[in-house]
Amino acid sequence: MIAKTPLPPYYAVIFSSIRKNGDKGYNIMAEDMLKLASKQDGFLGVESTREELGITVSYWRDLDSIKKWKENSKHKSAIEKGRSIWYKSFKIRVAKVERDKKFEIA
Amino acid sequence: MIAKTPLPPYYAVIFSSIRKNGDKGYNIMAEDMLKLASKQDGFLGVESTREELGITVSYWRDLDSIKKWKENSKHKSAIEKGRSIWYKSFKIRVAKVERDKKFEIA
Repeated sequence: MIAKTPLPPYYAVIFSSIRKNGDKGYNIMAEDMLKLASKQDGFLGVESTREELGITVSYWRDLDSIKKWKENSKHKSAIEKGRSIWYKSFKIRVAKVERDKKFEIA
Repeated sequence: MIAKTPLPPYYAVIFSSIRKNGDKGYNIMAEDMLKLASKQDGFLGVESTREELGITVSYWRDLDSIKKWKENSKHKSAIEKGRSIWYKSFKIRVAKVERDKKFEIA
């Protein structure tokens, strides 16, 4: 679903990825990482969807909370497995959200 | 596919959306808008994927090129139809990409 984020500024981590074939523990890991991320200080929300290309955008209060999440040991282990087992390619972009706008049918 | 963007800084427009049921011209419009966007000055690339949630991230050189695209008359007309016909809800976030990192199997 669309993340309910606070007023900007805040940060977005845009994770775009292409997977290899086969699950090999991917879906359990993805669910675990989502739960773990949501417990981190500074986590504001996440949006994720995949066809062949997957895009996961997580939202964070500041660069410091992103840095701490990047250094989380379980997360680091998942990233390592991502490189060796799950992904053909990925790109991570760290971006500062300067403004946003919402539309919703009443 | 994963967009081949230049070195940061550059801008990302993160468009997250939930659609109504039925095509009603949506897919043709989406393809047209993609083609049209890619011809604009300052356009750097786009990534798009959808399950129930759709995420389209377009990348731009600067805020000025985003502003011009926002004001493009065909694009404005598509946005209007988006509000009235295609989307239950959407959120647009404009964010400055400060750094990125790529992984690709050789």
